[in-house]
Amino acid sequence: MKKEMKFPGYFEVLTAEEIKTVHEDALKILAEVGLEVNNDKAIALLKERGCRVNNATRIVTFPADVVTEYMDLIPLQFTLYGRDPKYDFTLPDDGPIFGTASSGTNVTDPLTGKIRPSKAADIARIGHLLNEMPGISMYTCTISATDASFEYRNLERFYPALKNCLKPVRASGVDCVVEAEKILKLAYIVAGGEEEFMKRPFVAFHNCPVIAPLKMDHDSTEMLMYFVERGIPTYATIVPNAGLTSPFSLGATLVQHVAEFMAVSVLMQMVKPYTPVMFNSLPTVADLRTGAYAPGGVECGLLHMTCAQMARHYNVPSGGYIGQTNSKLPDAQAGYERALAVTGGMLAGMDMLQMGGLIEALMTFDYAQLAIDNEIALMLKRVVQGIQYDAAEVAEALAETKAVGPGGVFMETNITMKNLRTLQFIPTVADRNCRNVWESEGSKDAAERALDWVKEILAKENPNAIDEDTDQKIRDLYPDLMPGVSKLS
Amino acid sequence: MKKEMKFPGYFEVLTAEEIKTVHEDALKILAEVGLEVNNDKAIALLKERGCRVNNATRIVTFPADVVTEYMDLIPLQFTLYGRDPKYDFTLPDDGPIFGTASSGTNVTDPLTGKIRPSKAADIARIGHLLNEMPGISMYTCTISATDASFEYRNLERFYPALKNCLKPVRASGVDCVVEAEKILKLAYIVAGGEEEFMKRPFVAFHNCPVIAPLKMDHDSTEMLMYFVERGIPTYATIVPNAGLTSPFSLGATLVQHVAEFMAVSVLMQMVKPYTPVMFNSLPTVADLRTGAYAPGGVECGLLHMTCAQMARHYNVPSGGYIGQTNSKLPDAQAGYERALAVTGGMLAGMDMLQMGGLIEALMTFDYAQLAIDNEIALMLKRVVQGIQYDAAEVAEALAETKAVGPGGVFMETNITMKNLRTLQFIPTVADRNCRNVWESEGSKDAAERALDWVKEILAKENPNAIDEDTDQKIRDLYPDLMPGVSKLS
Repeated sequence: MKKEMKFPGYFEVLTAEEIKTVHEDALKILAEVGLEVNNDKAIALLKERGCRVNNATRIVTFPADVVTEYMDLIPLQFTLYGRDPKYDFTLPDDGPIFGTASSGTNVTDPLTGKIRPSKAADIARIGHLLNEMPGISMYTCTISATDASFEYRNLERFYPALKNCLKPVRASGVDCVVEAEKILKLAYIVAGGEEEFMKRPFVAFHNCPVIAPLKMDHDSTEMLMYFVERGIPTYATIVPNAGLTSPFSLGATLVQHVAEFMAVSVLMQMVKPYTPVMFNSLPTVADLRTGAYAPGGVECGLLHMTCAQMARHYNVPSGGYIGQTNSKLPDAQAGYERALAVTGGMLAGMDMLQMGGLIEALMTFDYAQLAIDNEIALMLKRVVQGIQYDAAEVAEALAETKAVGPGGVFMETNITMKNLRTLQFIPTVADRNCRNVWESEGSKDAAERALDWVKEILAKENPNAIDEDTDQKIRDLYPDLMPGVSKLS
Repeated sequence: MKKEMKFPGYFEVLTAEEIKTVHEDALKILAEVGLEVNNDKAIALLKERGCRVNNATRIVTFPADVVTEYMDLIPLQFTLYGRDPKYDFTLPDDGPIFGTASSGTNVTDPLTGKIRPSKAADIARIGHLLNEMPGISMYTCTISATDASFEYRNLERFYPALKNCLKPVRASGVDCVVEAEKILKLAYIVAGGEEEFMKRPFVAFHNCPVIAPLKMDHDSTEMLMYFVERGIPTYATIVPNAGLTSPFSLGATLVQHVAEFMAVSVLMQMVKPYTPVMFNSLPTVADLRTGAYAPGGVECGLLHMTCAQMARHYNVPSGGYIGQTNSKLPDAQAGYERALAVTGGMLAGMDMLQMGGLIEALMTFDYAQLAIDNEIALMLKRVVQGIQYDAAEVAEALAETKAVGPGGVFMETNITMKNLRTLQFIPTVADRNCRNVWESEGSKDAAERALDWVKEILAKENPNAIDEDTDQKIRDLYPDLMPGVSKLS
């Protein structure tokens, strides 16, 4: 089965010849340089299935035929499940999909406007907000709960998200089996048992098993294998940073990225054949003036576009952290860095764009920015619909044009009445008022209006939180959990 | 000759079949509805060359074979000339090109931050700024000189632009021959005579001869014919507004747009065969809640993408007013509305994107926004360069990767040193500092930093203004002209 196009044509950065070369060069890296694999279980499996292992250096090299054999097992589709099945989605079929990004440790406080450490209550609020934001379809736990106890550090990050959000939730930063099982037990309660949960595993897990360049660490690799074994949706993000952890060349960074993606994908297929895989990326170029991490740089968006092309070559869904910004505010910079990259990525064929909510190079969550990102997502979803060219409508329009004649007005024609509520995207954040109306409403900028909307939503209780009985069962198991209430007061 | 692609593939909204249908339906409009042409000279010419004219209604219908005959004469290229030949460009070869948009009547004052009527001095300042902004290649006179006398209303708008700007200048709003000749006489002085000017006509003229739907007015049609006769670069912008002046259907609006474009193009070729033409657009969808003009709506960008496809079908350069915003400030909304549409338009294949400087639905010029737009343009120009895949470099990178090994660092490798100054776009406006540095510099948002840069440029005299001797000759001819000095004080 071939990955289907959502449009008559995607934007292409690479030629067909270049795509082939990137693949071949990536195979060379795997065969000639290999990866340092710091996990014995993974090493044993890789060796058993035909990779070569240097026991002294822990370097594993991948013969091209082994890579090809296991890459061929990857299925085309990747499904994420929501607490409410209405929000399940399968990629690439239901894409492009927009999600939140991770992981920050700070929040712009929605009441004071000041920066402060992120808390479990923020995670609850974001969960509630996403139910009301149709542009954002997936909740990657976007910030840490810095107010959590050590024992509950993952639970306090995950529980408020799942409690409040109906859409697929993806846990981040879970670094050992004990912690994963705490989260899974909670999810089983919500599902009504482990068996029920496994029918629709509505929690996904994420990690970055490759430390670029070419090094797999113990814990993330262990967790990746654990989730794959159990059939729980998981995907790895590949994160080269050109000039620091990959060559200072976009071409060579892409090649390394593809090599690292294939290494992880091959391991996943060795653990369990036909495991769904996502080509998930966060490629960046270091600003070598200062060494600054610059995910808002246009080169990051450009690399994403090439990744989308490579993912199409491998027939797998593509996604990534895209349109991130170095701005400290939801200002023009955050607006144009995000919109430019995300538009480019989508038009190049990305299936899942994790862009929502974070500013300051992924370190800070901003409530207003989330509302702005929802709007960007909805605008792009309008682009996906295209112009819906309809021959019958155009023929009817020709008759209308004859009737109104040169210089006429189409305000009350049949087509206008028919399309009145469906043709255009009506923004929530963007202002279209005349200046005098805008001034009379306080001359607010987009960020202020976005925050007003957020506060309006959070002034009410979340009607879609987990029911009280289920919540009580969770609290019986984890009695010290914070309330996970989204209401802002 | 076929229009060349700048990339391996453009983004496509329309299928090949739809493109064909749009063309055929547009021919139907021209043949069956026609245009009301309110200019006797144009009517006589159209009639003489095979169009049918109803003398009572002034409706001209265009048989399909006549349209095809004259459309076939349109050349592939369109050249605009700068006062300095270094800034000449030819489309599509040198595209994508970014320009300023027109026309506003207000300015956000760069010193007070308050809105006020635009003045001749603002036009001078913008001209100077564009010399320093490599992203913006063309200066459409973006605002009116509201402080001009009636007699000098066009001169005061044009003179400060040409005096200060080295890049192609395009005069807007010139509505009669007497006014055009005032401007041309000034340009002849700068060129050193009419003959010299005509070798490189470094002033272009713009108008909107079609009042949608399907009505050509007297003055703009007259001026279009005047410039075409003389071989002075001119192009028309087509401006349907769905729901008001075109059907409330994106498909039917595109069809009408194409019909209007073909009518104007055919007339231009009848006046003078092989006259360069641009497929220049400003299609919008009215916000029918209030009737608001909404050029920031995503449907506008979507229509531009389809126009780029149609222009490719006709083998002509495409351009337009794109990425406009309804925002009253250079805030997040201005950032994302602009970046999203402009990125989409460029990736769909637009050759000239007039987006710089205006906010508030084309009514207000904002200095900070211009600097932001320069940055958006430069980011997109970085996308155009692609990843510059180089097999030799990738092979060298493989050797570097072997050398640094898994977990290594690429900060001081040969490739890093070689690409240090060329690989990435270094922003002027966007901030990449750590929060503490950013705070120590005043916690400024992007608009504040952009304005700081503008003021820095305008604090000095323009070293590239027209020399004093030439300026004196202009002042001898037009003694009451305002000084046209760009320095901000």
